[in-house]
Amino acid sequence: MEACSFEGKKIWILRVDTGEDILISLKNFIKEKGIKQGLVVMGYGTMAQVGIHWVLHNRFPPDNKFDKWEGGIELMSMNGIIVEGEPHIHFTASTMYGAFGGHMEEGCTCYVLCEIGIVELDGPQMTREMVSIAADPGGKPVKRPQLKFKR
Amino acid sequence: MEACSFEGKKIWILRVDTGEDILISLKNFIKEKGIKQGLVVMGYGTMAQVGIHWVLHNRFPPDNKFDKWEGGIELMSMNGIIVEGEPHIHFTASTMYGAFGGHMEEGCTCYVLCEIGIVELDGPQMTREMVSIAADPGGKPVKRPQLKFKR
Amino acid sequence: MEACSFEGKKIWILRVDTGEDILISLKNFIKEKGIKQGLVVMGYGTMAQVGIHWVLHNRFPPDNKFDKWEGGIELMSMNGIIVEGEPHIHFTASTMYGAFGGHMEEGCTCYVLCEIGIVELDGPQMTREMVSIAADPGGKPVKRPQLKFKR
Repeated sequence: MEACSFEGKKIWILRVDTGEDILISLKNFIKEKGIKQGLVVMGYGTMAQVGIHWVLHNRFPPDNKFDKWEGGIELMSMNGIIVEGEPHIHFTASTMYGAFGGHMEEGCTCYVLCEIGIVELDGPQMTREMVSIAADPGGKPVKRPQLKFKR
Repeated sequence: MEACSFEGKKIWILRVDTGEDILISLKNFIKEKGIKQGLVVMGYGTMAQVGIHWVLHNRFPPDNKFDKWEGGIELMSMNGIIVEGEPHIHFTASTMYGAFGGHMEEGCTCYVLCEIGIVELDGPQMTREMVSIAADPGGKPVKRPQLKFKR
Repeated sequence: MEACSFEGKKIWILRVDTGEDILISLKNFIKEKGIKQGLVVMGYGTMAQVGIHWVLHNRFPPDNKFDKWEGGIELMSMNGIIVEGEPHIHFTASTMYGAFGGHMEEGCTCYVLCEIGIVELDGPQMTREMVSIAADPGGKPVKRPQLKFKR
């Protein structure tokens, strides 16, 4: 573990409109406003389509399952961070039959309403650097894009 | 999509007590403290009853299903915003049989403990204005209360 | 209900690494940095194991069910507060078969990645004090560690 402190710069509210892709809208907003790093602390609304992936097991190397479907879906939370202008977002959603969630992919579109809260961060620069975190069954290193704090 | 930046004014922690309605408590707190706009970034605790609605499909006009029930329920997140003193909140909750969530209605009562985190916002005024977002099968406009930023 | 306002001091990002316990890492971080109080507003990643408890019903006294298991699990949100250096965290997680969540116990370990956002708070001191919130069927008081604001 490692931790680093930042100053809150601005708090942004992003409104995504009916039919727009939530992740693409967030990426366009980040580019337009020149945001380098931030915390995505809030996201809610409704969705007409979902794009998602999940990890499939807890071994190395990881395997992901990607899926897409459509329907009337409540979006209850978005949590993630923006590093070097790139968002990494997990979300929780539900229908009346129960909740699901995972890694947000393109394909999550706004149905009636979607509003996102972002805290832009000032301070040390964050980067992602590939580091070995484990070995696969053949002994080959498994890497992940680890968060680094440049103080 | 449209985005607007704000300054964080104060960070509030609201403690809701056993038997109290979570949404009504939040509304009373907003009124008492004269809060105009803010981000609801955190909410957790346990609930003895739930009041909720979900969208039922992704066509226009939307249809909602409202429900209420009681039980011992973990509250895991509350995400939403306060505009012109009105909160719009989505929540996620769970029992040992799985999670659910959606739009928070009156009827969610605190069981043992409930604590909520609100970031009050300074800056441009937000409003909600009815705008057409789609047409129903007969061609009649479908409206939603869209977030507007008055800069 | 009762509410109190705080100033945001610093915003922390905590990176938890593969194999590390999420709650223990958070506790170690709090101790190392001397954090007294804060809001946990964001947490996401993947987990290889889960440690959780849920309330079982809505009567007094409450009963909790504790559970632990392992698998490849998406972590979608962490919400909670830190009072007198002690974190109280609820989380939401999911596999492709659906979401679950509740009170985070030790036993939630990071699989590939886990990043947590904490807003350190300045202002009135918060404490937890045991207060009676109900009576059990025999009339004996049931207590909970209620949040108090020392203004």
